[in-house]
Amino acid sequence: MNIADLQSGDKLLGFYALRACELIPHDHGVRLRLEFGDATGKIAGVMWDQEAQNAYQQLRDAEVVKVKGLISSYQDRLQLKVDQIRPAEPGEYDLATLLAASETDPAELEVGISQMIESVADQELKRRLRAVIGDEEITPLYFQVPGGTAWHHPYLGGLAEHSLSMARLADTISQHYDFLDRSLMVAGALLHDIGKIDELSVGSSFSYSVSGRLYGHIVMGYDLVREKARDLEVDEDENVRKLLHMILSHQGKKEYSVPVEPCFEEAYVLYFIDEMDSKLNAISRIRAKAENADQDFTRYVNLLGTKLYLRRKEPPTEEE
Amino acid sequence: MNIADLQSGDKLLGFYALRACELIPHDHGVRLRLEFGDATGKIAGVMWDQEAQNAYQQLRDAEVVKVKGLISSYQDRLQLKVDQIRPAEPGEYDLATLLAASETDPAELEVGISQMIESVADQELKRRLRAVIGDEEITPLYFQVPGGTAWHHPYLGGLAEHSLSMARLADTISQHYDFLDRSLMVAGALLHDIGKIDELSVGSSFSYSVSGRLYGHIVMGYDLVREKARDLEVDEDENVRKLLHMILSHQGKKEYSVPVEPCFEEAYVLYFIDEMDSKLNAISRIRAKAENADQDFTRYVNLLGTKLYLRRKEPPTEEE
Amino acid sequence: MNIADLQSGDKLLGFYALRACELIPHDHGVRLRLEFGDATGKIAGVMWDQEAQNAYQQLRDAEVVKVKGLISSYQDRLQLKVDQIRPAEPGEYDLATLLAASETDPAELEVGISQMIESVADQELKRRLRAVIGDEEITPLYFQVPGGTAWHHPYLGGLAEHSLSMARLADTISQHYDFLDRSLMVAGALLHDIGKIDELSVGSSFSYSVSGRLYGHIVMGYDLVREKARDLEVDEDENVRKLLHMILSHQGKKEYSVPVEPCFEEAYVLYFIDEMDSKLNAISRIRAKAENADQDFTRYVNLLGTKLYLRRKEPPTEEE
Amino acid sequence: MNIADLQSGDKLLGFYALRACELIPHDHGVRLRLEFGDATGKIAGVMWDQEAQNAYQQLRDAEVVKVKGLISSYQDRLQLKVDQIRPAEPGEYDLATLLAASETDPAELEVGISQMIESVADQELKRRLRAVIGDEEITPLYFQVPGGTAWHHPYLGGLAEHSLSMARLADTISQHYDFLDRSLMVAGALLHDIGKIDELSVGSSFSYSVSGRLYGHIVMGYDLVREKARDLEVDEDENVRKLLHMILSHQGKKEYSVPVEPCFEEAYVLYFIDEMDSKLNAISRIRAKAENADQDFTRYVNLLGTKLYLRRKEPPTEEE
Amino acid sequence: MNIADLQSGDKLLGFYALRACELIPHDHGVRLRLEFGDATGKIAGVMWDQEAQNAYQQLRDAEVVKVKGLISSYQDRLQLKVDQIRPAEPGEYDLATLLAASETDPAELEVGISQMIESVADQELKRRLRAVIGDEEITPLYFQVPGGTAWHHPYLGGLAEHSLSMARLADTISQHYDFLDRSLMVAGALLHDIGKIDELSVGSSFSYSVSGRLYGHIVMGYDLVREKARDLEVDEDENVRKLLHMILSHQGKKEYSVPVEPCFEEAYVLYFIDEMDSKLNAISRIRAKAENADQDFTRYVNLLGTKLYLRRKEPPTEEE
Amino acid sequence: MNIADLQSGDKLLGFYALRACELIPHDHGVRLRLEFGDATGKIAGVMWDQEAQNAYQQLRDAEVVKVKGLISSYQDRLQLKVDQIRPAEPGEYDLATLLAASETDPAELEVGISQMIESVADQELKRRLRAVIGDEEITPLYFQVPGGTAWHHPYLGGLAEHSLSMARLADTISQHYDFLDRSLMVAGALLHDIGKIDELSVGSSFSYSVSGRLYGHIVMGYDLVREKARDLEVDEDENVRKLLHMILSHQGKKEYSVPVEPCFEEAYVLYFIDEMDSKLNAISRIRAKAENADQDFTRYVNLLGTKLYLRRKEPPTEEE
Repeated sequence: MNIADLQSGDKLLGFYALRACELIPHDHGVRLRLEFGDATGKIAGVMWDQEAQNAYQQLRDAEVVKVKGLISSYQDRLQLKVDQIRPAEPGEYDLATLLAASETDPAELEVGISQMIESVADQELKRRLRAVIGDEEITPLYFQVPGGTAWHHPYLGGLAEHSLSMARLADTISQHYDFLDRSLMVAGALLHDIGKIDELSVGSSFSYSVSGRLYGHIVMGYDLVREKARDLEVDEDENVRKLLHMILSHQGKKEYSVPVEPCFEEAYVLYFIDEMDSKLNAISRIRAKAENADQDFTRYVNLLGTKLYLRRKEPPTEEE
Repeated sequence: MNIADLQSGDKLLGFYALRACELIPHDHGVRLRLEFGDATGKIAGVMWDQEAQNAYQQLRDAEVVKVKGLISSYQDRLQLKVDQIRPAEPGEYDLATLLAASETDPAELEVGISQMIESVADQELKRRLRAVIGDEEITPLYFQVPGGTAWHHPYLGGLAEHSLSMARLADTISQHYDFLDRSLMVAGALLHDIGKIDELSVGSSFSYSVSGRLYGHIVMGYDLVREKARDLEVDEDENVRKLLHMILSHQGKKEYSVPVEPCFEEAYVLYFIDEMDSKLNAISRIRAKAENADQDFTRYVNLLGTKLYLRRKEPPTEEE
Repeated sequence: MNIADLQSGDKLLGFYALRACELIPHDHGVRLRLEFGDATGKIAGVMWDQEAQNAYQQLRDAEVVKVKGLISSYQDRLQLKVDQIRPAEPGEYDLATLLAASETDPAELEVGISQMIESVADQELKRRLRAVIGDEEITPLYFQVPGGTAWHHPYLGGLAEHSLSMARLADTISQHYDFLDRSLMVAGALLHDIGKIDELSVGSSFSYSVSGRLYGHIVMGYDLVREKARDLEVDEDENVRKLLHMILSHQGKKEYSVPVEPCFEEAYVLYFIDEMDSKLNAISRIRAKAENADQDFTRYVNLLGTKLYLRRKEPPTEEE
Repeated sequence: MNIADLQSGDKLLGFYALRACELIPHDHGVRLRLEFGDATGKIAGVMWDQEAQNAYQQLRDAEVVKVKGLISSYQDRLQLKVDQIRPAEPGEYDLATLLAASETDPAELEVGISQMIESVADQELKRRLRAVIGDEEITPLYFQVPGGTAWHHPYLGGLAEHSLSMARLADTISQHYDFLDRSLMVAGALLHDIGKIDELSVGSSFSYSVSGRLYGHIVMGYDLVREKARDLEVDEDENVRKLLHMILSHQGKKEYSVPVEPCFEEAYVLYFIDEMDSKLNAISRIRAKAENADQDFTRYVNLLGTKLYLRRKEPPTEEE
Repeated sequence: MNIADLQSGDKLLGFYALRACELIPHDHGVRLRLEFGDATGKIAGVMWDQEAQNAYQQLRDAEVVKVKGLISSYQDRLQLKVDQIRPAEPGEYDLATLLAASETDPAELEVGISQMIESVADQELKRRLRAVIGDEEITPLYFQVPGGTAWHHPYLGGLAEHSLSMARLADTISQHYDFLDRSLMVAGALLHDIGKIDELSVGSSFSYSVSGRLYGHIVMGYDLVREKARDLEVDEDENVRKLLHMILSHQGKKEYSVPVEPCFEEAYVLYFIDEMDSKLNAISRIRAKAENADQDFTRYVNLLGTKLYLRRKEPPTEEE
Repeated sequence: MNIADLQSGDKLLGFYALRACELIPHDHGVRLRLEFGDATGKIAGVMWDQEAQNAYQQLRDAEVVKVKGLISSYQDRLQLKVDQIRPAEPGEYDLATLLAASETDPAELEVGISQMIESVADQELKRRLRAVIGDEEITPLYFQVPGGTAWHHPYLGGLAEHSLSMARLADTISQHYDFLDRSLMVAGALLHDIGKIDELSVGSSFSYSVSGRLYGHIVMGYDLVREKARDLEVDEDENVRKLLHMILSHQGKKEYSVPVEPCFEEAYVLYFIDEMDSKLNAISRIRAKAENADQDFTRYVNLLGTKLYLRRKEPPTEEE
């Protein structure tokens, strides 16, 4: 039962991620404010007084719960009146149903990335791509982790979707500017965020690993690719060296925590298309949420430094 | 006689832009340090003592000169020993020979831009593009002025070359992201720097007009397009309004002197591709100068904030 | 019945702006939190349970309401217990009673500005001032819109009050520094914020227009004055050109969103007196609110970057 | 014999500040590059070979010299061929002839400042002004030191001229805004830079004292006024306290090295008029130098962050 | 009865600082939210309806109260149900029980600082230290005031503890770098924050004095030491002058509100050890609060610009 | 023959680094400006006309030369009149005589660092230190490379000297703050700049390697230590993980190019002592050069953001 499909009056029974659980006092008792999530959305829940107290004790460390209750409408929003609730046991539920996922079919992502790898003309870079993305420990993570925890591509498969989108841009732009080395551009696009497979961790929600916070995905990605480069005994290949620089510099500016700033054409272009693809993904999700609200501008968005303008002109029809 | 083709021993006679003219004392006399330029390069010149004094008086306000002399080699560089020199009269010379020009054929630029305009689906935007770029006062300037005086596309036709390059990127990227309005993207690319036709002035070198410095090309471009929009009585068309915002915000951030920051997708993408196309043009010219020097890195480049890395791996041959 | 004059026990009946309307749950029902405003202040209102539910449905899009109820005192503040409430029809009420207004009499503002215009010695600038401020579409807006929505002069007539204050400072300071062109200074002061008549919109509260957000008042002001300059066929007059630069640069620094920074004396002085007049207006309103609280310092004020010191020494009496 | 009055062919004999003295090699000898200055300007000088060598040994520590020679014209500039030169003895020359001085008559400055002091209504502030500026050790310095060494008012009497100009602005602006305490404004204007009498030192040129560099004029000014406040036993008077804050905060922002930022109206206004008076003085001197050059804009001026626009429209004549 | 020792079921009676007192409406009445503090911690309190109303009237200006009530547990936190409460009279309570205090014994601090003073080899600096810290008005404050109101050493004796810690570091580091003047380093450490005795004020909580906000502790410290320097007639001693510079520059950078930046070795080292000692004190208190929570990282700490990592490896045992 | 020991009249013959070689035109010929360096200093050299031309052709790519000539005094500086000069062959000279070296005896550095390693209590960290610094490829580089190319410790052995100095500070400060883990502090000090053995390259002068510029020493150091950590199979030891974070964060702030900012106590302290030790080394070399000049302040030093104050008070003698 997807949260996005619920309607007032539905009876709900299932496993959901528990995203918030807070006991709130009122005059002579308490209310338990809950929030449940799955891959399709989230919904508020409520329990009162003694039951709330009991549930709170039980649920404090739970990440996933089995819950039963009735959906009702309150102040224009749906809400779950909880009848029964308990922590879920591992194995009872399917993690994939709890987290948002890329709208692109995983198989399609895999084919797309595989074709991109095979299209790389530079043999050393192609070997590197196969060795890293094709590594049996890395592959599943590469197609699982999100692009980030909140701002852009924050869903299962987000890293692969973002990397493939950038590789396609890299391909296109390499045709536009003939001095760009297409192999480098595509390899850089596919590997620039590879460190996120170690930096991020996927449970019932997305979070940072301890070493992810201590080292950061930029250094972790460099490390992953360099490690493989040593195994393949090609550490000093000119384009491998450039690829490593591109990974280290792909956030473009010191203020975005890079140890070195871009110093050749492909490194600059990688930075630009990463900025563009990340920002457009973030904007499209902000727009999706805001457009229902029938307004001209969103609220001020901190990371954009502006309000987003929402109006769109209908595209011209054929006859025009 | 192109400066780039001169060799030691050549006798030179012709019209050249006078880019420097400075009297320098030595023990009991003076030396006149000159610099001549044409579309292909520049060369130093020298005169001594009394002749230097006389020439200096005559040349101080000259922008173009007729000069005769002998090319010799001095400390690995060519130099012109001047025999005769005088200011040129207007009409004696062809301006086009004195200024660097785009390597793309002007006719090709015109066709390219014309096709881009015709490919725009949104009728209001297409009318606007025809009205502005097709205006008989504007057209010649649009294909003449450079993209800037020094950093990027600093040559005749630079504005058109830069605009066309961006329009093609805009076209490509609009296919990649289906939510982008291709008409807006192409119109924004072709018109974003249109204000430069008023901001810059083309004489024997490129410079800023007085009102260019007082208003800036961003506001001048907005003004040009808005003015035409009023004539066409479509000022309030939604996409025209967005186009005006894109012109005003295309430098992306307050620190780059925009009165408003981008607030919808097409405006962000325009900013990214402008940054990319400008920087790559600047880099390619820095690389061209530096590569002869047989070094791994250039000197520190202020506007890049780094030294540029010069080594390139040879692309793989067919058989590989 | 001005909100500022209400006392506990009063029965209230009238038209007020509805500034907030929020349904808040409590244990087994809801409370409707309301806020009413008029030109003299604001007051909280409350409704309970079923009536609250009904009212909420009706009021959600209302900007102005007709309301009846009883004023009581709650926790040292007045509050309105609402008996009856409904959205107002256009025409039932007088907008001027709903919005804060300048303390200066409108007629006085008009006379002051008119005298300032007539005092300008430079004939081109005087024609420009008459053509813009005296334009029959512009005049009513010039005397209506506020100086801003929140920080300085946020009341009807605020733009005119601010402009007149600055014109008087401009006059005085032009006498102090004899190299300043008084005509330019006064014209700059009267027109620097003219773009706000298009940027801001006046309904039952002050807000930004869509094109105000897309272009900004700086560019809109330049556009308004330039447009008139073209009609008068004096676009290239030296002082008109300077006036346009002053409008574009009057916020002084790139970080404050100007397309060009000031580049002559009058432009700098305009920036200084705008900063001064805006800041002092903002401070005087912060002080007015804080002084009752009987404290030495206000809370930290973000836009000042400090707490404001409130103590004042009594001025000396005559005999001293 | 003022430097500003010299003409080619003049024989010069007199005392001048020696501002530069550098031995420069040429092929088989040396040239001594000299620069002489007095209150009206500066002129280059030259000596050759053995005489140059001898003079250099003698002059290296000299600040003022007696010099004899012939004025000639070299490359459109005047130059002194030195015949005889020796260091001057203290007492031989009048310092006032060697340093630039305010164009305002010293007596006029003294009267102006004295009247300003007497016009202060607040008795404690007036006592403070008399005690500080009227102190027999302070008075001569107050009317001697410049406003700074290079940027604004860099001439004898500059501090007094700048302080008086600001006091007059303070007076005017206090009439414009009736909530300003005129006594505080005038006292702040007259004393804000008083620390410069200790920070700067006046020899044959203007420089910083050692303790000036170690403490800075802001703290030194606070110290001077507070010291006097203690002698007068009025340290805790409310307006004296505010005056001290105004001295400490008058540069307005942390980035300009203030220990505290302004926190009441008079402190803000003092900052604005200091910025304005300093910048206009600097600009007027830049303009004076540049206007001869018959150009539209100066070179880029670092401290303004722009090129200065030089054209001025003739003011209208009476009949217009 | 220390707040840190309370348990559910305890009856409490005593004097406590009243840190918060706010009347909060609920449906048909009000609740009074209280917060009580002493040297060991803080605890929430609550009263309802009519009693709440009455108490609120009485307590609004109270800083210390006598309170009686019952401790109970609410949502895992202790809370005080207030039975009786009234403002305390001065003299009824001991201030020292209400404010947090350094864990170092005051006597130990006094001995430590006294020994440090006596260890200073430079006689002028030692005289200065004795004259300032040994002054009978200053001594008690020096050992009472905190190092700050919130970030570092925010407890009674904090200034002395911080100063002594820094003096010991200064001593050690002076041995490491033989070019450092140990006397200057120790004197700088002991006096760098001396201005805080005037800037801060100690009541039932720590706050800023009015003149503390108007001048700041940097200038106040310079003033205190310079004043004593004048009394001792040694103002111009080289090391006293350096000491004054060190006080003025000890926050190291303009952005931290210093009137002058450090300009010799001892001034730099003082800045570094102040930064280090302050930050480590702040971190140790953040860690102490966070470690109970059994997590790897704290929340984002604004003043650190990061989350703090909490895990610690057990130190090796002897045998290892 | 050390350059520092040369006197006018000496005949010089030997091998020196050639640091500058530039052909400068004069009236009817050329002068060759040369600069020679060795470990003790540098000296200018000169050749004229035809000989200069010949020498220039030969020397353009030379890094070390064999040179013969006469030392004379010119304008208070020594200068070498070159009689014979030719590029040196590898093997003819001893590199150590050409580069500045640490004043600390290499053997002493080795003993000091070795003792520091052995003093580390944490066995994993000690193994790591031995494995890295004791590696036969790494050891010679660790004791050879400088601390940097120009700003701090720019001499042979500079890295080891700087690391040992910091390890001693780390030791001392770990005693002062008992919560610091001494093992981590010492290991961090010894390894924080280890990446410089790959980043820098030592020829006849100090420069950056290509991969040094592409990756930077921070990432290279992390890589070196992590690589060894994998070999030792202790990658996940808690303190090894912290050590890696300390290497990555030791420059403390994003603006100094760190991929992560410090997030625990030892990482902060490492940053502070690195800043302190680097800056004091730089200052001591600036002071050494400036003190001869008999002035109170140096010129403005960009990297300090101030002029350095040079006066020092003589330390008190015993009897005082």
